[in-house]
Amino acid sequence: MAAEKNKEKVVLAYSGGLDTSVMVKWLQLEKNLDVVAICGNVGQDAQDLTWIEKKALGMGAVYSKALDMRSEYAEDFLTKAIAANGMYEDTYPLLSALSRPLIVKHLVDIAHETGASYICHGCTGKGNDQVRFESSIHALDPELKILAPVREWDLHTREDEMEWAKQHGVPVPTTAAKPYSLDENLWGRAIECGALEDPWKEAPADIYTLTADPMSAPDEPEEVVLGFEQGKPVSLNGKKMDLLSLIIKMNKIAGKHGYGRLDMIEDRVVGIKSHEVYECPGSLAIINMHKALETMCLDGVTLQYKHMIDQQWATTVYNGLWYSQLKQALDAFCADTQKFVTGQVKAKFYKGSMTVTGRKSAYSLYDYSLATYGEGDTFDRSASKGFIELHTLAATTWSKTQGPAAEYELQKQSENVHVA
Amino acid sequence: MAAEKNKEKVVLAYSGGLDTSVMVKWLQLEKNLDVVAICGNVGQDAQDLTWIEKKALGMGAVYSKALDMRSEYAEDFLTKAIAANGMYEDTYPLLSALSRPLIVKHLVDIAHETGASYICHGCTGKGNDQVRFESSIHALDPELKILAPVREWDLHTREDEMEWAKQHGVPVPTTAAKPYSLDENLWGRAIECGALEDPWKEAPADIYTLTADPMSAPDEPEEVVLGFEQGKPVSLNGKKMDLLSLIIKMNKIAGKHGYGRLDMIEDRVVGIKSHEVYECPGSLAIINMHKALETMCLDGVTLQYKHMIDQQWATTVYNGLWYSQLKQALDAFCADTQKFVTGQVKAKFYKGSMTVTGRKSAYSLYDYSLATYGEGDTFDRSASKGFIELHTLAATTWSKTQGPAAEYELQKQSENVHVA
Amino acid sequence: MAAEKNKEKVVLAYSGGLDTSVMVKWLQLEKNLDVVAICGNVGQDAQDLTWIEKKALGMGAVYSKALDMRSEYAEDFLTKAIAANGMYEDTYPLLSALSRPLIVKHLVDIAHETGASYICHGCTGKGNDQVRFESSIHALDPELKILAPVREWDLHTREDEMEWAKQHGVPVPTTAAKPYSLDENLWGRAIECGALEDPWKEAPADIYTLTADPMSAPDEPEEVVLGFEQGKPVSLNGKKMDLLSLIIKMNKIAGKHGYGRLDMIEDRVVGIKSHEVYECPGSLAIINMHKALETMCLDGVTLQYKHMIDQQWATTVYNGLWYSQLKQALDAFCADTQKFVTGQVKAKFYKGSMTVTGRKSAYSLYDYSLATYGEGDTFDRSASKGFIELHTLAATTWSKTQGPAAEYELQKQSENVHVA
Amino acid sequence: MAAEKNKEKVVLAYSGGLDTSVMVKWLQLEKNLDVVAICGNVGQDAQDLTWIEKKALGMGAVYSKALDMRSEYAEDFLTKAIAANGMYEDTYPLLSALSRPLIVKHLVDIAHETGASYICHGCTGKGNDQVRFESSIHALDPELKILAPVREWDLHTREDEMEWAKQHGVPVPTTAAKPYSLDENLWGRAIECGALEDPWKEAPADIYTLTADPMSAPDEPEEVVLGFEQGKPVSLNGKKMDLLSLIIKMNKIAGKHGYGRLDMIEDRVVGIKSHEVYECPGSLAIINMHKALETMCLDGVTLQYKHMIDQQWATTVYNGLWYSQLKQALDAFCADTQKFVTGQVKAKFYKGSMTVTGRKSAYSLYDYSLATYGEGDTFDRSASKGFIELHTLAATTWSKTQGPAAEYELQKQSENVHVA
Repeated sequence: MAAEKNKEKVVLAYSGGLDTSVMVKWLQLEKNLDVVAICGNVGQDAQDLTWIEKKALGMGAVYSKALDMRSEYAEDFLTKAIAANGMYEDTYPLLSALSRPLIVKHLVDIAHETGASYICHGCTGKGNDQVRFESSIHALDPELKILAPVREWDLHTREDEMEWAKQHGVPVPTTAAKPYSLDENLWGRAIECGALEDPWKEAPADIYTLTADPMSAPDEPEEVVLGFEQGKPVSLNGKKMDLLSLIIKMNKIAGKHGYGRLDMIEDRVVGIKSHEVYECPGSLAIINMHKALETMCLDGVTLQYKHMIDQQWATTVYNGLWYSQLKQALDAFCADTQKFVTGQVKAKFYKGSMTVTGRKSAYSLYDYSLATYGEGDTFDRSASKGFIELHTLAATTWSKTQGPAAEYELQKQSENVHVA
Repeated sequence: MAAEKNKEKVVLAYSGGLDTSVMVKWLQLEKNLDVVAICGNVGQDAQDLTWIEKKALGMGAVYSKALDMRSEYAEDFLTKAIAANGMYEDTYPLLSALSRPLIVKHLVDIAHETGASYICHGCTGKGNDQVRFESSIHALDPELKILAPVREWDLHTREDEMEWAKQHGVPVPTTAAKPYSLDENLWGRAIECGALEDPWKEAPADIYTLTADPMSAPDEPEEVVLGFEQGKPVSLNGKKMDLLSLIIKMNKIAGKHGYGRLDMIEDRVVGIKSHEVYECPGSLAIINMHKALETMCLDGVTLQYKHMIDQQWATTVYNGLWYSQLKQALDAFCADTQKFVTGQVKAKFYKGSMTVTGRKSAYSLYDYSLATYGEGDTFDRSASKGFIELHTLAATTWSKTQGPAAEYELQKQSENVHVA
Repeated sequence: MAAEKNKEKVVLAYSGGLDTSVMVKWLQLEKNLDVVAICGNVGQDAQDLTWIEKKALGMGAVYSKALDMRSEYAEDFLTKAIAANGMYEDTYPLLSALSRPLIVKHLVDIAHETGASYICHGCTGKGNDQVRFESSIHALDPELKILAPVREWDLHTREDEMEWAKQHGVPVPTTAAKPYSLDENLWGRAIECGALEDPWKEAPADIYTLTADPMSAPDEPEEVVLGFEQGKPVSLNGKKMDLLSLIIKMNKIAGKHGYGRLDMIEDRVVGIKSHEVYECPGSLAIINMHKALETMCLDGVTLQYKHMIDQQWATTVYNGLWYSQLKQALDAFCADTQKFVTGQVKAKFYKGSMTVTGRKSAYSLYDYSLATYGEGDTFDRSASKGFIELHTLAATTWSKTQGPAAEYELQKQSENVHVA
Repeated sequence: MAAEKNKEKVVLAYSGGLDTSVMVKWLQLEKNLDVVAICGNVGQDAQDLTWIEKKALGMGAVYSKALDMRSEYAEDFLTKAIAANGMYEDTYPLLSALSRPLIVKHLVDIAHETGASYICHGCTGKGNDQVRFESSIHALDPELKILAPVREWDLHTREDEMEWAKQHGVPVPTTAAKPYSLDENLWGRAIECGALEDPWKEAPADIYTLTADPMSAPDEPEEVVLGFEQGKPVSLNGKKMDLLSLIIKMNKIAGKHGYGRLDMIEDRVVGIKSHEVYECPGSLAIINMHKALETMCLDGVTLQYKHMIDQQWATTVYNGLWYSQLKQALDAFCADTQKFVTGQVKAKFYKGSMTVTGRKSAYSLYDYSLATYGEGDTFDRSASKGFIELHTLAATTWSKTQGPAAEYELQKQSENVHVA
């Protein structure tokens, strides 16, 4: 790394796209900083990312690296997301919200290694990702200064950026811009585009890449069996595999059958509603199979209470607070509940849907001898009468004093009065 | 009604099936009671139910009536269930739990009219329905005494019952017993059978009657538009209709496309897990479209908080506490949130799945001018920096004192010590 | 009102103190606005507030009015706060948070009447009140522009302000500044001062004005009886009175006995912890007596669930969201629960403490015949066995499979193995 | 131990009082069981309990032991209760609910050691303790059979028992029965008596033994400093001590000043409300000081969320589910939050009240430089404007569409129409 002696350094979250490429130059020219351009591979692309390193260096970055963070992402972030059934507003599996704190962790580490005093991100000024980037930077090193050029510069349109790029030797894309922006990683793919801004319109068919159109998906259903140990997926169709490989495989299977498309209105951290479309074949399949196993391994009150904890977990992570006290305590709750979430779940994919068709566990709380109406039934029916009596006693007392029974009593009295 | 002078009366929840037919006789013989046999039509059957009245009278009931409760069910019970997105354990739309308090209301009214001092139900001793029947009876008139013959008599098998029936002149079914028991009403159909007791096995194909097998469902998707006013469905595909008609119609459409099958492990009130299969084409379609409209008409915090309220509502109703203080207060919360849940939702059914493809409302909180990245954008990006700073300030302070930033500080100090 | 034709108007929340007096002039000179100076009397002072009007007019305000908002405050705001037992972080009765939305309502009305396009408040840039003022203004009329001079001007110290005041003809206080800032209204008094910034130090004795030092409070306890109707206080010691009079009276009684001091660390909306001292004799007494009546008139599950609702209500109001969808729905929940919170509560004040010594209600859910161990006991002990069996069944099943009973089983087996 | 060969054994929870003494004999005579009489010392009495062992053996028990469980109670049970601020219905520190699972643990261990197949408790049939005993027994060994003679025998009054005792050689108390029953341990003392059954009457003065009457408490306040490490009390007034000694000492100090009396209406597990009086000087002092430290060491959202967790913890434990999946997961949440709840709290006792007068911690999240209005202030006021704008954006959007701003708009339009 050949950095100028007396220049300060900035670590840039670099994707190789137009926005952050312009930033490589802009940070040098406008901020007089040495640029360290880091690209985190969180599964957005199977292919080789060395072109990204070269591109950054070609524009004057003093250092550039594409880091493969995929295993760490799966092991340290997605495992927790699965344990918490992490779905924001009970729908969206948080894909961008999960990758940001991981990427920032590496950016901060590299800032420490290179002695950089700035971190720069390419997020827009009205989205969630600026919040997640900056909160993670603050949490990991509050001394680091943050640059968010999109909020600061006056390149307001893609045309402005193209023009600036041409003038300053930034390679300009030769193909037309894709009409939608997106974020993609192992856990799914987020799509935003002008066409989506009308929430009454269905998303155009051509925006999907991970999932088949359900109408052209295979005519034969496909069944998979997912094995879990302590809440973590460990095998697929009987074959042990690490979580990274398992997710990649599950994305393919579920995607082939058109499963995992989401079209929702979502509440952003910054207080606005947006219309979002996602493809999350693997993540939705895994979370929903995990939930099915939980119905077998968690007792009723725990399951119901955990549902509330799960929602808080998702909201906290969505809002950028991965590195926070509450998030850690919620993780501790979830981890404790996962100790016996071990077993197998069977599900069937077919033309856009996934149906759980079986679950089993050595720690199942489903007790055949209590549940069956046939032979071997051990449930003590004689207990029911007493149970119901006390289970309903408070409601009965309420009704006699304030509720329908009290009203009936008043009505009877008034009728008696009328009669007399 | 020709009741014996000095005999006490019992109002029997009568279905016309073997169990409750045996009870018509058993209550006369074993309990020396005059039987008033009441059948509530909550949508279990389209056909004429007068045969039920005749059957009861034929066995000596002093009075019998099949009451059409369907409109009342839709207007007074299902409307509230839709407002609360009532799904137990986030899955099951509560069909039996919703009809019980309505049926009991009529049984109690008839007990009052006929001067009966008993109510009798045919529920088993390990299920939820006994709880719901008895808690509703207690709530509506705690003076009424309850009989639950199945918990009391010694007719333990179907064979025992058939034998007793033959001996006492109760008509005996000539066809073989269906291998599964069920409960059905407007809101769906619950199926229990021996084959379901192994939660690893998929439910057999022949148990479904309301929903087509997704594999044989139409090859063409079907789109519907559902209109809501203040959270209540009021039109289908542009045509105004009362809720009862709308539900019947929605059951047909959704069922035709194989939508609405549920296979779940569920936590019963009495503390056991059971494996349940349901068909809920109309109810699931309506609730999920209602939820979609709520994402547009409720703001983020309300939506997220209401999700927790909805869960409590469902648990309370599932547990038999329809007539209770908490249930009423939860209703008041939900009703308040529905004041502007008015608009339309578009959804597409296809081979077992339903996908929301659009939603619109005159009271939409989705604000194009805030959400768009294109022209007309009014969002104030300059506010983001300050927002993020304070939004993350508490987490940053935590991190510096107790979290990762504190750890990093300690690590730096220890490295300095080692160097020195 | 003699406003200049082509000048825009600003409605200023005017207190008569140095800060807002400087603003009267500053808004004219720096912003070229006509000033409408409005003081809301929410109980901060028993005395005549016409001096405030005169002072504003004397400095060039085009209109000034001190409005008595006390009855409206009690009826429309404190009644809801009592129903929700509104205490932030389970401690602080929200006094400032409750008065802001009321004051803003009047400021906005006056802005509409006078055609003003600005509202100006005197809040500092790191407190909660700026949030509450501005969120209420946004909610009531998002077209109104907001001025917050303290965040904008460069008068950073009291000395700067005094100097500016002298130069611009603003009357300057002749007495030394009080060493602490405060906010006071019917519901209590908030105190902030340098001496309080060390949370290890006890607050100095001289900062309290509403409450006696417990050590010099009367040696004799004093008992009061508070009557409620549907959750609202309506009588004191048997005498019916309106809520405003009742609160004034309760402040005196409780304060005389040294009751109602709070010393707490509190989490502000803007993300910082602050050390706060409050005196809330009347509000704490009323809320705690209301809570005592609720334990009698709400059943267990409602009481416990409402505690959670109450917390959310307090947080929502504290955070400035009085005018919000969630707040309204929480109000609806609370209102529904209050329908039978009617009765009387007896409490004793003595040297800093209040103890509830009795409560009674015509709608009491405390049922002597169920509770007594003496004669007249109607509780059915025979129900307990069955109740306990099913109440604990899920936990027992868990224990056998995953919990201590499973561990014991494993241990026995391993011992057998060792023996063999 | 000289047990008869072919007799089964029962482990009796033995207190030495009349009820359980009668049981020692009754179990032999009526159930033909060998009795193992175990008394758990959980702090109910400072004195020597060997008389209890002797008394049981004298009546024919085959084995008897008074076990000192106090340290285990403090370390394994009360430590968790402090971490969770365990107070049922936000008031009652759970004293009986905490000791039951500990006592049962020992009873079950002894049943295993002695090969007993029964456990017997002396609880009444309408209280909470029968639930707690039986649920803990079920959880620890579901094979053990339970005897609850009070629910079974026909000794309905104290006189019946006295008579039976005389006839069967059970020592009969020579003093008159105390007019109230009670349960006492380290964590406090519960009192029930006929006089308490009227919730409008104040409890008689003579029922208290741990706390002075506030009116005769010392005229001088007393200040104490309590030190915590990771949420656990470890020192008092600067002196390190184990938790058992610390609680004993705190009971004395707080009790001397009349602090810790509770008079409440409480919702029992079995569905009834009861009027309860408690003395909890040490437990209330410790929990309230712990809470004060948490306000310094937990951030706002964690503190507020944990309050809800704490309530669930208390309800779960109150309801007898100490040994349960949910309780363990809640413990994990709490334990995680306690990692930095380390520091000191200062409080002042005076004539019935305790006031926290200071708190400090090396991990305090109270940041002087953010909180101060004086020199050294580092809070960035310029961030507030943007923060408020986005913090309130959703509420503002709501108001424009559905709330007061929408109403104002409608009103303006209708006025314009009227004018025109």
